[in-house]
Amino acid sequence: MIITSAFDSGNIIVKSAHNTNDIHLDIRRDHNSEFFQWFHFRVSGVIGDLCNITIDNAGKAAYVEGFENYEVCASYNRESWFRIPTKYNGETLSWSVIPNQDSVYFAYFAPYSMERHADLIADVSASPLVRTHVLGHTLDGQDIDMIEIGGTSKDKKPVWLIARQHPGETMAQWWMEGALDWLLDSDNPNAKALISKAQIYVVPNMNPDGSKRGHLRTNAAGANLNREWANPTLENSPEVYHVLAKMRETGMVFNLDVHGDEALPYNFIAGFEGIPNPTQKMLTNLETFKAKLCDQSPDFQRKYGYPIEAKGKGNMTVATNAIAEEFQCLAMTLEMPFKDNADMPDQTYGWSPERCRHLGAACMHVLGQMIDNL
Amino acid sequence: MIITSAFDSGNIIVKSAHNTNDIHLDIRRDHNSEFFQWFHFRVSGVIGDLCNITIDNAGKAAYVEGFENYEVCASYNRESWFRIPTKYNGETLSWSVIPNQDSVYFAYFAPYSMERHADLIADVSASPLVRTHVLGHTLDGQDIDMIEIGGTSKDKKPVWLIARQHPGETMAQWWMEGALDWLLDSDNPNAKALISKAQIYVVPNMNPDGSKRGHLRTNAAGANLNREWANPTLENSPEVYHVLAKMRETGMVFNLDVHGDEALPYNFIAGFEGIPNPTQKMLTNLETFKAKLCDQSPDFQRKYGYPIEAKGKGNMTVATNAIAEEFQCLAMTLEMPFKDNADMPDQTYGWSPERCRHLGAACMHVLGQMIDNL
Amino acid sequence: MIITSAFDSGNIIVKSAHNTNDIHLDIRRDHNSEFFQWFHFRVSGVIGDLCNITIDNAGKAAYVEGFENYEVCASYNRESWFRIPTKYNGETLSWSVIPNQDSVYFAYFAPYSMERHADLIADVSASPLVRTHVLGHTLDGQDIDMIEIGGTSKDKKPVWLIARQHPGETMAQWWMEGALDWLLDSDNPNAKALISKAQIYVVPNMNPDGSKRGHLRTNAAGANLNREWANPTLENSPEVYHVLAKMRETGMVFNLDVHGDEALPYNFIAGFEGIPNPTQKMLTNLETFKAKLCDQSPDFQRKYGYPIEAKGKGNMTVATNAIAEEFQCLAMTLEMPFKDNADMPDQTYGWSPERCRHLGAACMHVLGQMIDNL
Amino acid sequence: MIITSAFDSGNIIVKSAHNTNDIHLDIRRDHNSEFFQWFHFRVSGVIGDLCNITIDNAGKAAYVEGFENYEVCASYNRESWFRIPTKYNGETLSWSVIPNQDSVYFAYFAPYSMERHADLIADVSASPLVRTHVLGHTLDGQDIDMIEIGGTSKDKKPVWLIARQHPGETMAQWWMEGALDWLLDSDNPNAKALISKAQIYVVPNMNPDGSKRGHLRTNAAGANLNREWANPTLENSPEVYHVLAKMRETGMVFNLDVHGDEALPYNFIAGFEGIPNPTQKMLTNLETFKAKLCDQSPDFQRKYGYPIEAKGKGNMTVATNAIAEEFQCLAMTLEMPFKDNADMPDQTYGWSPERCRHLGAACMHVLGQMIDNL
Repeated sequence: MIITSAFDSGNIIVKSAHNTNDIHLDIRRDHNSEFFQWFHFRVSGVIGDLCNITIDNAGKAAYVEGFENYEVCASYNRESWFRIPTKYNGETLSWSVIPNQDSVYFAYFAPYSMERHADLIADVSASPLVRTHVLGHTLDGQDIDMIEIGGTSKDKKPVWLIARQHPGETMAQWWMEGALDWLLDSDNPNAKALISKAQIYVVPNMNPDGSKRGHLRTNAAGANLNREWANPTLENSPEVYHVLAKMRETGMVFNLDVHGDEALPYNFIAGFEGIPNPTQKMLTNLETFKAKLCDQSPDFQRKYGYPIEAKGKGNMTVATNAIAEEFQCLAMTLEMPFKDNADMPDQTYGWSPERCRHLGAACMHVLGQMIDNL
Repeated sequence: MIITSAFDSGNIIVKSAHNTNDIHLDIRRDHNSEFFQWFHFRVSGVIGDLCNITIDNAGKAAYVEGFENYEVCASYNRESWFRIPTKYNGETLSWSVIPNQDSVYFAYFAPYSMERHADLIADVSASPLVRTHVLGHTLDGQDIDMIEIGGTSKDKKPVWLIARQHPGETMAQWWMEGALDWLLDSDNPNAKALISKAQIYVVPNMNPDGSKRGHLRTNAAGANLNREWANPTLENSPEVYHVLAKMRETGMVFNLDVHGDEALPYNFIAGFEGIPNPTQKMLTNLETFKAKLCDQSPDFQRKYGYPIEAKGKGNMTVATNAIAEEFQCLAMTLEMPFKDNADMPDQTYGWSPERCRHLGAACMHVLGQMIDNL
Repeated sequence: MIITSAFDSGNIIVKSAHNTNDIHLDIRRDHNSEFFQWFHFRVSGVIGDLCNITIDNAGKAAYVEGFENYEVCASYNRESWFRIPTKYNGETLSWSVIPNQDSVYFAYFAPYSMERHADLIADVSASPLVRTHVLGHTLDGQDIDMIEIGGTSKDKKPVWLIARQHPGETMAQWWMEGALDWLLDSDNPNAKALISKAQIYVVPNMNPDGSKRGHLRTNAAGANLNREWANPTLENSPEVYHVLAKMRETGMVFNLDVHGDEALPYNFIAGFEGIPNPTQKMLTNLETFKAKLCDQSPDFQRKYGYPIEAKGKGNMTVATNAIAEEFQCLAMTLEMPFKDNADMPDQTYGWSPERCRHLGAACMHVLGQMIDNL
Repeated sequence: MIITSAFDSGNIIVKSAHNTNDIHLDIRRDHNSEFFQWFHFRVSGVIGDLCNITIDNAGKAAYVEGFENYEVCASYNRESWFRIPTKYNGETLSWSVIPNQDSVYFAYFAPYSMERHADLIADVSASPLVRTHVLGHTLDGQDIDMIEIGGTSKDKKPVWLIARQHPGETMAQWWMEGALDWLLDSDNPNAKALISKAQIYVVPNMNPDGSKRGHLRTNAAGANLNREWANPTLENSPEVYHVLAKMRETGMVFNLDVHGDEALPYNFIAGFEGIPNPTQKMLTNLETFKAKLCDQSPDFQRKYGYPIEAKGKGNMTVATNAIAEEFQCLAMTLEMPFKDNADMPDQTYGWSPERCRHLGAACMHVLGQMIDNL
């Protein structure tokens, strides 16, 4: 048996792998950070063997509620990620499987590699509607890619979509594939109507360094990018620094910041209610967006979510709040589950890349319905 | 304009990128080594701009003849790699292009990423004929993957195929895709006949660390793996150490070691004539293989190649010689061009991944014709 | 030059084809009928030649307004059907083209062959949600295929979708592909929600004989199936006879009958207002469906359409009226253009198969939103 | 239960279909002919039912040895055709199956529809190497399609490939797909080399009328085209008339006429030895082709085949003989099995479309090896 994580977004520390019956692992902390929860590793040479796998330090992870009723993602072919039930006892997370192939991959959620990211940028750039921009470099020297959709007209409303500030929340980039496919389908009348009114700026991966390093929450400097929006710096958070600068250049009437939530088994939206100066129009649009998205997709709901912050009490280092206040526009955080949508559970795959794509399309549909009011 | 190489197999040093008219670059040396020649980088923000690109240290590269009459590989979509003519003046290598997309990639040859490698292993493992094995770890902790084709019969001849000891010779792994597709096509009668007689062991990438790091010739320790076969060590060359150990376990009647040659614009085979004890059968099989491959593929030829070494004068640290001597079997080095096959030039793509795949299939066909005599 | 229509849905009479500059054709009447308008033929041996094509009897076709501002569908590869402008002078329809391939196909709208129909039935039958039924034989001995979606639960609402009573209205079957893809996408939450509440019966082609024969409006007996619902017979209209019998067996809360309109360049719905006994619920649902479909797709509109019939004045031989009255449910006729949607014109393709598919998906989405009220 | 054959290449007569346990069928004779053996039909409404199917008139079919040790082709999805064992008692052919889908298709061999043929012509015409020609019309008004490969050079050797004179021998057209894929692969060095020396004329379906009508051997007039080469007429055999006229226009150094054999479970070649004036070069080339094809593909063999005719005793109405004598060139009939290749049996699929494609590629490879000597 050999266990490896020396690949894109790999993360595991092997403590004991002498016996497939009793494999012990730790999750590695994000570099320069206390956060850890993302894992991604390959176990080889185990076909037909009972593998009992335990993550010993699960109880010290960032969001331990995330491991309650959690099912781990597994794949033989790196494309289809099925679920395996786990046990969490407050300290360790464990699961058992008898692989039917020589190698099996495990991950906290279906991984999304930087190679796939690069292919995504290259693929969309074939569209005549698309320009691609590199806004700057990360601390590890990677490109910060932005996609601009819409041509050269000057009179259109600027709309932003950003994802994966937290690199372990890979569902955010799968969502982006769905949103981009919807937007760039030249036979989709809703996309054509939206693009005739909006110039759309898309950052499908805000955190390439954390993504490649196998981090949960932070970039190469250990910075949680979604706490950097008050005062981003080139030294600590160039990703936010460059994106915010571009936002100020384009202006903005809408921003959706796409995330994953470890604990809640639902899709939900967190708004900007805690900012100092929300307008009634902004608040109305927030409720309208949520209502229309409920109508558009049964995978979305409004019952479960984060507590709403009181006006003026919001954390202004968070993207949604910082953007809503500065641009006085509808800004939202979309959260998708690591687990499943408990309203429509899927026994085999749980919440999955393909379902993320559908939700991405549904969000774009609602954006199209609302663009005239933004 | 932004230039980046912070990705799988990326390699470039930006010296001056202020003006697209006058871009100056260096190739980075392989870690702990004097070798350099492989490059792979992305230039962004240059649509419609005349880009004059110069690699200043080309004249100090490992194989400077490789830059004579060389055409650089370029791609917008990361799939199709077309050629652009270059000028080499003995010191610098330069080319010019006006990109018709925002970003363009350049590389010494069409890259083959470790993510694609991992997909290749996962894909072939779906075949009922295939077992995959991880022989050990590289110095960077990556898996050393071996594919075994053929089922559980004990009476079959062991055959080995290895590629990409030199990581910058990516054509070797494209060749492997062709060989594996041919072998695993369940409707291919030649493959069925060959597999009924041979157990086939395939190492599609001998040097994962050099591949990911963007090296030309060496692994993470700076070792040229094709000079490590006399005495491989876990400290310096675990890749060879583990593969040779497995070869000794399986035995061998045939080995093909797949490479690329920087200078010669031809496909050719280098044999084992310099070993101390070649048998007549081995020498006959060597000539037969080359003759049959000429008959099978017009992309192969016997006119151009390396000088033949005198008996006993061969470098026994090289895989082909070490294996031929130890296993007293047909062992060969296949060389493909970085440039093109001058006998059948392709103006647009030069020697290309798809042509490597065809040659891989042709070699397997000839192996099938010869298996009874090995 | 050779002109042929001896293939599935082919229809043309060659009057003069001696000179590509002056090709004269007639459209063949539907068998046993006065109707004609559908055409579909292949012209070969004309690469680089100016072809002036005239349909001499266009002015006697069934719906001559259909030829005003009409653009003919043309294809080299039988997959992509682009548009070519035509001239209609009240008597003849003519167009000119210099083909860049040896052969070119022309058709009134992108054809949909019975082989493709058979593949569609075979493809959907792979879904675990699907049962396929053959309700009986046409007069030409072809199968009348029905697809049932939804499993074995008994408590679900019966919903019907039928298309292509008029065989030349091929857009109706392209629409069906979009509806079926949407319904059978196992990751589509809206489809899952709808199917949990509805048993869906689909007849993707009501008129196989007219389809294969290249008819515009009628079956093999010359019957206009959408005038047969008052009293269908095995002798004259077995297609309606068998489908209506099955409808009576399953019951029904919804029927959508999908058509194409020759003249109007819009998508619109014709309702059942002319039946003797429409209920307020039925009328409300009709308006709700149209309103929601407007909201869901900018390719749909309510401004243009057929005049609304006064209560009790409707033609009860028409499917929508007959069904609405008998089953006292929401029954509608969806009309798509042969030309284009003038609200969102596409210069290259006009109204196209891919846009039909999108509208099919949009209609299913609205059905899902309304199922609780049906 | 409903049984249908009213589709492209359908052929069956239902005698009794009241009880799935006891289904009785006859094969319909070719129009104006005594030949029959091809069948193709769909049985619907039989999921989970034991179906005992008997073809009552099998013992009067054209080649009754074809039913000994025959396994019938069956398909649920119209793409994958698996085999089911049959019993033949000298009078009837019968088999049993419990379908796991609502509908199942049965055929004598995997069908190849005229729609697929039209797609094939359209697909290859996208290649810059290809011109397509319609040589004339069949009696049913269908196009007689010829593909010309090779560009405009005048100094190349004319080579012909024809298939499916006997329409029920669909393997001949599957073979054509393999040959055409091989020839038109722009990265295939052997194809490039061959095309640089040869102009290749391909008739992938000599008998469109028999194909669509579901015939075994004859065209719409009941003519066995492979007995029409001495004196083809527009009235009886326009297919041969037009092709032979074109052959005389282009000249010819090679012809391969592709067929299927009902009885022999092998691939083999029948030559032209019975013509009045075979040259030694022709005879040598015949033996060389067979020897090289043996070397190229283990699916080919020389042990089993038809008895060799004595010089001057050959039937000169047969294409191979007529062509060899008139053009004094290598002309051959390739026969593939309806059953399987007994040397390399495939339990699941028998001889299959995919294996036909491989043999087509192998034949083109050998043609390339021999072109200089033709």
